[in-house]
Amino acid sequence: MDVEAREQQHVPMWLVGHSISDPEVQVDGGLVDDELNAGYDMISGCITNSSFHKRVEDAIAQARSEQRTHIHIEPLIADEVNMHPGHYMISVIGFASSWIELESADPLIAHVSKQVLDLELAYAAFCGLNQVVIPGPRNREQTAEYAQAISAALSHSTYMQLLIQLPIHDWIGDESAPAESPLYEPYSAWDAWNTIRTVCKYSGQLAVALQIPQRLPNPMVVRRWFCEPIRMLLISNATFCPNNKGFPVFSKAHQNMLTKYMRLRPVPYVLLEQTEFPPLLRAAIKIKHEDDAYLIYLRHLQKNQPPQSTVERFGSGYQDYLQSPLQPLADNLESITYEVFEKDPVKYQQYQNAIELALRDRPVGKEIVVAVVGAGRGPLVTRALKAAELSGRTIKMVAVEKNPNAYVHLLQKNRDVWNGRVTIIKTDMRAWKPTFMVDIMISELLGSFADNELSPECLDGVQRVLNPEGGVMIPQSYTAHFSPIMAPKIYADIATRRSDPDAFETPYVVLFQAIDTLSEEDYIHNAWEFAHPVPAGVLGEAASMGGGFVGLGDGGNDHNLRSCKVTFKVPRRGVVHGLAGYFESVLYGKVELSTRPDTIDQKSCDMISWFPIFFPLKTPIYLPDHSEVEVSMWRRCSERKVWYEWTVEAYVRSGNKRFPLGGSELHSSKKNGCLM
Amino acid sequence: MDVEAREQQHVPMWLVGHSISDPEVQVDGGLVDDELNAGYDMISGCITNSSFHKRVEDAIAQARSEQRTHIHIEPLIADEVNMHPGHYMISVIGFASSWIELESADPLIAHVSKQVLDLELAYAAFCGLNQVVIPGPRNREQTAEYAQAISAALSHSTYMQLLIQLPIHDWIGDESAPAESPLYEPYSAWDAWNTIRTVCKYSGQLAVALQIPQRLPNPMVVRRWFCEPIRMLLISNATFCPNNKGFPVFSKAHQNMLTKYMRLRPVPYVLLEQTEFPPLLRAAIKIKHEDDAYLIYLRHLQKNQPPQSTVERFGSGYQDYLQSPLQPLADNLESITYEVFEKDPVKYQQYQNAIELALRDRPVGKEIVVAVVGAGRGPLVTRALKAAELSGRTIKMVAVEKNPNAYVHLLQKNRDVWNGRVTIIKTDMRAWKPTFMVDIMISELLGSFADNELSPECLDGVQRVLNPEGGVMIPQSYTAHFSPIMAPKIYADIATRRSDPDAFETPYVVLFQAIDTLSEEDYIHNAWEFAHPVPAGVLGEAASMGGGFVGLGDGGNDHNLRSCKVTFKVPRRGVVHGLAGYFESVLYGKVELSTRPDTIDQKSCDMISWFPIFFPLKTPIYLPDHSEVEVSMWRRCSERKVWYEWTVEAYVRSGNKRFPLGGSELHSSKKNGCLM
Repeated sequence: MDVEAREQQHVPMWLVGHSISDPEVQVDGGLVDDELNAGYDMISGCITNSSFHKRVEDAIAQARSEQRTHIHIEPLIADEVNMHPGHYMISVIGFASSWIELESADPLIAHVSKQVLDLELAYAAFCGLNQVVIPGPRNREQTAEYAQAISAALSHSTYMQLLIQLPIHDWIGDESAPAESPLYEPYSAWDAWNTIRTVCKYSGQLAVALQIPQRLPNPMVVRRWFCEPIRMLLISNATFCPNNKGFPVFSKAHQNMLTKYMRLRPVPYVLLEQTEFPPLLRAAIKIKHEDDAYLIYLRHLQKNQPPQSTVERFGSGYQDYLQSPLQPLADNLESITYEVFEKDPVKYQQYQNAIELALRDRPVGKEIVVAVVGAGRGPLVTRALKAAELSGRTIKMVAVEKNPNAYVHLLQKNRDVWNGRVTIIKTDMRAWKPTFMVDIMISELLGSFADNELSPECLDGVQRVLNPEGGVMIPQSYTAHFSPIMAPKIYADIATRRSDPDAFETPYVVLFQAIDTLSEEDYIHNAWEFAHPVPAGVLGEAASMGGGFVGLGDGGNDHNLRSCKVTFKVPRRGVVHGLAGYFESVLYGKVELSTRPDTIDQKSCDMISWFPIFFPLKTPIYLPDHSEVEVSMWRRCSERKVWYEWTVEAYVRSGNKRFPLGGSELHSSKKNGCLM
Repeated sequence: MDVEAREQQHVPMWLVGHSISDPEVQVDGGLVDDELNAGYDMISGCITNSSFHKRVEDAIAQARSEQRTHIHIEPLIADEVNMHPGHYMISVIGFASSWIELESADPLIAHVSKQVLDLELAYAAFCGLNQVVIPGPRNREQTAEYAQAISAALSHSTYMQLLIQLPIHDWIGDESAPAESPLYEPYSAWDAWNTIRTVCKYSGQLAVALQIPQRLPNPMVVRRWFCEPIRMLLISNATFCPNNKGFPVFSKAHQNMLTKYMRLRPVPYVLLEQTEFPPLLRAAIKIKHEDDAYLIYLRHLQKNQPPQSTVERFGSGYQDYLQSPLQPLADNLESITYEVFEKDPVKYQQYQNAIELALRDRPVGKEIVVAVVGAGRGPLVTRALKAAELSGRTIKMVAVEKNPNAYVHLLQKNRDVWNGRVTIIKTDMRAWKPTFMVDIMISELLGSFADNELSPECLDGVQRVLNPEGGVMIPQSYTAHFSPIMAPKIYADIATRRSDPDAFETPYVVLFQAIDTLSEEDYIHNAWEFAHPVPAGVLGEAASMGGGFVGLGDGGNDHNLRSCKVTFKVPRRGVVHGLAGYFESVLYGKVELSTRPDTIDQKSCDMISWFPIFFPLKTPIYLPDHSEVEVSMWRRCSERKVWYEWTVEAYVRSGNKRFPLGGSELHSSKKNGCLM
């Protein structure tokens, strides 16, 4: 297939390497060229060989004979290494010696292992390697000891990424034991990783090289690793099974897992290992073409990946990237921002459907005043005119916009596109004083958490203009929703922002990818609702305190305060790093919008205008199996600002009592609150 | 009694106040004068009166009738307050209204309560009050909601201390129920406090006003509160019992509790409340002199407090005050520092005993070479000369000192005090090259954590000089010990050091006061040991790597690496804020030193030379009932430095398995390590 055809097919970028685990193989330019010619993208090899291993073993034996507890391992010599600097090293990944045991309970072995690792990492860095795979802890009781050694290695190898080799799960005992076996510990390998990265302060230099077994774990375990920084998938030929022609293929479960993991950003490397099959197995499985069949099959999978969804295509490059929410009242948006919003294939169609429904609920013949408040570049005006046409209603179309630049654009559009059918008014909607009343008032003021861009305050401010006799607003109502999540990559990103004291006091707009939900049933809950128009009494109450429009008096916005407390059950252990926020909105009648992952497909499939929001926790909280996490959130306001506060508590239940396991401090976005 | 006599008796400073809980009482200059004349040191009163309460209740009733969910409470008027600014306000503590319910599940009540609190705090601040007592949360399920309101109040009242009024424990149900009743929740009030201060980020503005009941809780609960910032003890007349003459007195348990709490720094205020006795009780207890008998009794207790211990007297003012450990090799000490060390009544006597024992173990007649390495201003030289006298041994006395200023002092002392009996040598002990061998080598190089001031490295460097035929060192050995502790005050102090990125990576020398141990049996464990002289093989091994004296080569100090992992059982819930470190040392034979609180009295009672050390945790970890805390510690070294690393993990055990509850990151004092 030529390059062009491949590109048209959008073949995803997979880097597949060949793992050479024989410590006697010299990784030189010739070998690297051979492997690249064979179709691999890279190669991995052992940094040192068996001569070095023998020297270290002899030194240990001598120390034991002399009853010494510490020995000094002298630097490497030329005969002991498999690598040398060279331009081809860019295609090479190093493996630290598999015989080291950093966490050994024998102080001599632990001490020697740390020296060996330091020597190998320093030499690998000298050769120009950027990534080294280190065997994970075998003695899991000693994981803290292992983690301390890795922490020291990180501080010595500032420019290198260290990949901790770990199985996706631990099969304790028989491989053929049933999955419900009491010996099966689905999360114990992840537990070890969680300890290592916690001890190492979520270092960005640290990642996982995940071993994919023949027998995949519970899908919850596959999901759990998905939120971790997997930099490499180690796949041995024993992981494949033969198809009916004897060629190596993946089970359906393995294919799905690979598809899932290979959509992570950055895309993990796949490293193919050749394992000696046990003799019995070898006879049984009869896989043909041992040399290249595995690579050929992987390339086949690569070419046949399912296409990306609309959201994946639109969000490409934005996964887990943190943005600050808009400040639409304080800032004037630029045209390009509007343009991005207008690209949404779903949102404006839903608006048009809602407007059409609202118009059809009114009698034919009588002129209906339709206003778009905050018209921007006019996409809702276009949709409202279209809806009027479809419903056969006569409307007076009004567009209100405060941004002077967008106003110019609207005037031009009215002249060139709308044939002068639209009355265009330049004002902040909260100060608009028309001589007529509006029957259908349309706005698009929702933020990622529904009310976080001040939709309630803006609409309160313009409700004066709505016809008290049957006037409606589109949207009619909206609700904020949230879910406690595990998001170690995002947490690590925020934790690096040390110069910003409010880094953990800020809600971020983010397209989640590498996250895991902690609760399973009902994992997203409604926080609160706003409905429009607000009952006249409530607005009267606000006005009596000086509120309800620009220049809110003391307490004038108190009817827009909200708070909630929700308890989520956490069946399987994990770490809560913060809250994912979503919204739902009833535009009109049955026409809705949703960004909730569990309802978006049904209510507004493929809508791309909003990424979710993330409320971070400064200190991640570990949640054991069968625990509960209780989230309290507040929407607060002063005369000038709206902001959020949030706190999280963990509990376990024993009988009919529950016991605390700790909680977070109060987080507040007051300093970064939305200005009115 | 005249002032002089009182001072000789060291009557402790207690401030006893009179609590006026009737909201109709105006706190004016006349009333304050009357109370001070009656013998009180201060007075407390309600900030607002029942007129204000009535206005708020009316507003709530009206809002309910109008089905409004938010009302705005207008500012206070003159008729509604009990206080006005005045010079006497320095003797007044304010009480927020007891009828507010910040955590109410009814949004209208919660909203009104927050406004009332804000109005009262703002008015109290205007009147010049520094401290206001706020009723604690009654609905404990809603503690997070309460804490959020307090957090908001703290941010509005920057200069005021807010005292949260809490019972020492919750008696759920019958007062006369036995202490083992399943309804008895000894830690539930503390749980509420822990949530409040965690949510409020350990704010220094926040403290506890602790209600002392007639029935005291488990002594563990009394100890728990001792580590919290108790600013006030609220004692009602119902807390007293009558003695055989009918005068009000305290039970022995109450006396002990008061003695304990009144040694906190700052000393809590005692506030006496007059409660109406229930009629039956009033008849039963027949307490005489209701008006002033309580105060008279408290003053009597105050005068008859048990005397302070030597350590309390010496450490006065240093409780929970964080100091950086000495860097004895990098810095030259000043004379005053030596003088403080020399004041210890116990340490030098123990040294003298040890030297005498060591001398008696050697034959009479033959000259014994005794050297003090690091002689400072010579206190050990004096003791060694004295020991020689007592034991009837002939010694050649040598003093080695690197500090040029101390050297001058030693020369002068040899001329004026020691009659020229001492050979004084100015050198770093590690570079000392005498023409003779030393039989008894004495040093005082121990730090608060035994080896943290480089005693092992210094003594390795001078061991060349020790007679290989039976030469001994004093101390012969030393061990480091530690205990996971709850230390919220110290944690809060470190957390304020935001400008220092290494604040949580530093071990601090500190005289602990407000701490609680988390483990009960075996709450302190041995970390590791050093013994001198080091076996010749080990030192030979070090020398072969270029170590064992000044200018250590690679790995030359590896025999002084140490690590340990210890699991502590935690029977009752708490929060681990860090590790308390202590040491023990065998000076010679049976003569020992100890700073371990459980062995100091037996081994070296009243020794004051060392305060303990504190290894902080950046993130406190909550430990539930019946949990385990596992501590890993390392003594690490490079060619130039010695430092510590530490990490903590929490577990619960279920059957024969244990499950993680979270863990800390790795803390490392490398940047602040001790330089060689």
